[in-house]
Formats: sequence, structure tokens, C-alpha cells
Amino acid sequence: MAKIIPIHKNKENFNEAVKSLSNLCKEDLQSINTLILEKLDSSVPLIHEIGKYLILSGGKRLRPLLTTSCYNILNNQSLKSINHIGLAAAVEFIHAATLLHDDVVDLSKDRRGNLTANEVWGNKTSVLVGDFLFSRSFQLMTKYGNMETLKILSDTSVVISEGEVLEISNDKNLEMSQDTYFQVINGKTASLFSAACQVGGISGGAKDNEHQALKSFGTNFGMAFQLIDDAIDYSSSSKTMGKNIGDDFKEGKITLPIILAYGRSNNEEKKFLQNVISNPKEDQNNFKLTKELLIKYKCIEDTLIRANHFADIAIDSLTIFNDNEYKEAMIKLIETSVKRLA
Amino acid sequence: MAKIIPIHKNKENFNEAVKSLSNLCKEDLQSINTLILEKLDSSVPLIHEIGKYLILSGGKRLRPLLTTSCYNILNNQSLKSINHIGLAAAVEFIHAATLLHDDVVDLSKDRRGNLTANEVWGNKTSVLVGDFLFSRSFQLMTKYGNMETLKILSDTSVVISEGEVLEISNDKNLEMSQDTYFQVINGKTASLFSAACQVGGISGGAKDNEHQALKSFGTNFGMAFQLIDDAIDYSSSSKTMGKNIGDDFKEGKITLPIILAYGRSNNEEKKFLQNVISNPKEDQNNFKLTKELLIKYKCIEDTLIRANHFADIAIDSLTIFNDNEYKEAMIKLIETSVKRLA
Repeated sequence: MAKIIPIHKNKENFNEAVKSLSNLCKEDLQSINTLILEKLDSSVPLIHEIGKYLILSGGKRLRPLLTTSCYNILNNQSLKSINHIGLAAAVEFIHAATLLHDDVVDLSKDRRGNLTANEVWGNKTSVLVGDFLFSRSFQLMTKYGNMETLKILSDTSVVISEGEVLEISNDKNLEMSQDTYFQVINGKTASLFSAACQVGGISGGAKDNEHQALKSFGTNFGMAFQLIDDAIDYSSSSKTMGKNIGDDFKEGKITLPIILAYGRSNNEEKKFLQNVISNPKEDQNNFKLTKELLIKYKCIEDTLIRANHFADIAIDSLTIFNDNEYKEAMIKLIETSVKRLA
Repeated sequence: MAKIIPIHKNKENFNEAVKSLSNLCKEDLQSINTLILEKLDSSVPLIHEIGKYLILSGGKRLRPLLTTSCYNILNNQSLKSINHIGLAAAVEFIHAATLLHDDVVDLSKDRRGNLTANEVWGNKTSVLVGDFLFSRSFQLMTKYGNMETLKILSDTSVVISEGEVLEISNDKNLEMSQDTYFQVINGKTASLFSAACQVGGISGGAKDNEHQALKSFGTNFGMAFQLIDDAIDYSSSSKTMGKNIGDDFKEGKITLPIILAYGRSNNEEKKFLQNVISNPKEDQNNFKLTKELLIKYKCIEDTLIRANHFADIAIDSLTIFNDNEYKEAMIKLIETSVKRLA
């Protein structure tokens, strides 16, 4: 039987790539952090408290990093009328708002090794503070953006929420098509990656072909990233993941590995999966049996192949830019991101 | 002991005033409805279904009505660059989003005599569809507004969510100050009334003094409206209210009548109120005893006096406009709104 390779080392390589790119964008990221902190301020103390807890709890700031990378790869005169620092903060606020609401929807208790906000302050507070962060992001994009970036970010917010509703509309639906799954992960991840890249590019004075390239880079990187995340959920330990093993499994969440396994299973195995998904619980034996099906039908390998498809397109999209250190680090980011699971 | 006057007749007068103003703005309201329906469309069927359930369930469209009234009272050349129909729809989408999230936060089961969306589809779906409606509103305001209206509406969204968090931060706090209470109702009602009026005015080419007048009209009307709503909760029957008797009471929600009663109570009565609010339930006897305290300390009368203070300012704010049928109907709207409880 095939063996799942430990991913500790590969995960580290990705973290290194994030760090290298972050170093190149260090000043921008510091300005973004300062602005985020400033905009978490509110006359209502609870908002400030939760906002800080959430935003400062050690995420990678991947989306603001994409904004500033795409701004810097252009090496252009920047547009005076808009500000990529403000737009990067707006993107991070949208992301933080969706995390708060996601944790309420998924009843999650743990995020990046910390208790989720809904565990600490309750679901009600998380819903309302999520609304605050979302409103704040619109305030930021109104202040720092132009009509083009506003259109991109408000359209993206619609796509995000449509993706989330599509996902719960297909709750426990093992017959979900791959296309529907792609629409879901586009909504939950790729669309905001793409918007982050686009607003960075526009702030940096991207020409239309450059804008389109950065849009493609963000979208396809996001698709690859989420596919790998979904595969890792069936392959890693809590320690390396920063989230509990088999979270998706425990919640009965339908992701590509399970969709592939179900489609390829015989009738008996299909019944087993139906039973497991409709009564999700922390059952180590069921988890083990499910992973055996994933191995039998090469579902993790094929998920990885899909991820590489998108990653390759993301890398190709950068070919129109002159070689520079940002471009090199962005390619490395994609390459190591799909190798988190190799 | 004083007697609570039945409010059937007074409520009808307000409904008549809404109807008269709606008739004046009939064409606009039809266009707004058409646009709302169009924008509820989504590739995700569940969104369409819930959106229709919520938005078409027989609300008065008070906020879009304010937008179109404030547009029409000016009788000006309208600004070509922005569109009051689109902005009115954006305002209604913000309102609908907050209703969905409020019902999740309050665990409400009934709204306007129908089951709430969270009762029908569950809390998760309500959170996410609320996010969709909110995103859609930003899409609408980006499409139909300008930077000024975007700033007003995004600032308003922040004030709304701050007000909501402030409210749950003061959950069961009988010592909440009147000023904090005013900040809460400004967030939950007056700020969106105000924004609805302002964007209508700006679309209609309002000069600065006219803009300020309409802002004041909306804010003060909203404050008066919410004060009366909070008083009605202790005075009306389910039939006339379109919501269950004593909802705020059952939820242990702190509104002005209770704040006044608690402040004016003796120690024994204070203990009773503390007990009632910290263990809220549908206890007819406790409700009766609480209402007796409200009557003893004239809390409903004084809530009404506060409401009239704001209503008077709202009416005064309209003096700068030439007399016309819109102005007359808007004054009638305010007058009958505070007389819902007389």
C-alpha cells in the first residue's frame, strides 16, 4: 500500500518562501500592519479586542503579501490616486471577516492552535464583529481605492458569499461535481487571492495585459493552494498543519479527495462513505478506513495533479513580466505551496 | 393606575401615512422593487430563495421610501452620474442583511408574522446569505453611486455594526446610560435612515444645506421611530405589532423604558428587575409586574417625550424646503409615527 510522505520538511520550504517574499516587501507589510491596527480601533472596546485577537494571532498575511508583491513586480510609477497599502488592509479585513463567519458556520473551536473567537466570545459576537470588519474593509477601499478597485472588491465579496452558500447547499452531497467543487473553492479562496493581486497591480499602474496576468496568477494560485489544503486535511498531523487532523472529515465537509473517492468506489464502499459523511464524528477507525480508500483510488495524488494544473498556469501567467527578485520569489511561493504535499 | 391606550387606530394612521407617501413615489418604488428582484438573482438557488423570502415578505420598504422621498422633495435636476433607484436598492439590501444577522443573534423565530429565515434554513445559512446581501449592496452602491455616497454608506455600515456590538456588550446591563442607549439605536436604526435620506438627496442634486437638512431629518426620524418601537414592545398585542408581545422583555433586552424604570426603582424593585432581566423567559406574571413598574414611574410616557424631541427636530429640519406634496407627506409620516403610541 502506498505511503503518505511526512510533510514537515515541505511545509517548512513553503514557510521559507513566504518569508523571503515578505522580506522583499518588508516596508510595505509594516505599513499595512500599522494601518490594520489603526483601523481596528473603535469606540466599542469589544470590537477592538476581538479584532486584535483575530488579526494579530499569527496568520501569514498571505493576501496583503500578494497585493504588495503584485504592486512591486511591476516596478512602475504607481497611481497617485490610489494606495496599495490601504487596499491590502481592506483585503485582509475581508479575509478576517470571512474567517469569523466561517468559524461560526463550521462550529470550529480551534484556529492556528488558538481558540476561535466564537469559542471565546460566542457566536453572536463573532457574527457582528465579522460584520464590522467587513464594513471597515469597504470603508478602507472607498478611501484608498478608485471605482475600478471598488468594483473588483465588491464583486469579489459577492463571489465569496455565493461560494460559501453553494458549499453549505451541497452539505454532505458526495455526488457534488468537480465543477461545483471548483466554484466553491474559487469563492472561498481563489477569488480573494485574485482580487488581492489585481488591486496591487492596478495601484502599481498595471497595463491591461499585466492586470489580466496578475488576475490569472492570483486565481490559479488560490485554486492550487486550496486544493493542497484540502488534500493535507487527509494527510497531516495537527502539529504541522496548525489545525486539527481531519477537520473536513470530522465536519462531513465534501472536498475533492472525497468526491474522487466516492465516484471511484464500489457499492459497498459508497455505502460506507455515505454513512461516514452523514454521521461525521471523531472516529479514528472510520478516518483510517476513509484514508485507505483515498489511497486505493489515488485520490490524494489526483488532487495534487489538479493543484499542479492550476499552479502551472499561475507560473505561466508571470512570464510577461521582466525578471526581478519579486517575480522569482512569487514563482518560488507557488512551487513550494504545491509541494507542501509531495 | 394609568391605562395603556389601545394602539390599533394609531398604528393604522401611520400605515396610511406610509401609503400616501408611497403613492406619491409609486413609479420610483416600482423601479426599486424590480431592481431588488433582479439583484436577488444568483447562480446559487438557495440565495435567491432566501432573499426572496426575506425581501418580499411584506415589509414597508421604509428606507427606500425615504431615499426616493428625499430625492423628490428637492424637485431639482437630478445628478446624471448617480442613480437614486440603485442606491435605494443598496440601502434595502443593507437592511435585509442586518435583519438576517439580527435574527441569528437574537435567536428570533418570528418576524412580521412569518417564521424567520434562521428558523426555516438554519443559522449558518442566514449568516452567509446575510453576507451575500451585504456584498450585493456594496456592488449596487459601487455601480449606482459616487465617492460621496460610497463614503456615506460604508461609514454607515461601520456605525451599524458598532451599534450592534455595543448592544450585546451591554447585554442585561440595567445601568446602561441613556447616552449609550442612544448610540445603540442610532446604530441599529437612525444611521441607515439617515444614509437613505442623504443618498436620495445627493442623487437629487441637494445643495450642502439641503444635504445637512435631509441628514438631520433621517437621523432624528430614525431615533424617534426606534424609541416608539421600544415603547410599543411593552404596550401592544401581537396582532397590532406584527411581532410577539414583549419580545425585548423575553430576550432580556435593555431599552429605554427599562433603563428609566430601573433608575427610578427602589432597592426591592431593582432586585426584581435584575432577576427578571438576568433570567428572561415568557412569564406573563413577571411581564405584568414589570409593566406596572413602567406605569408607576411613567417610563413609557417619558420614552414618548424623548421620541417627540427627536421627531420635532426631524420636522424642523424640513423647513428649508419649499412646500410641496412630498414635504407634507413626510411631515405626516413623522407625526403619525410617534403617535403609534399616544
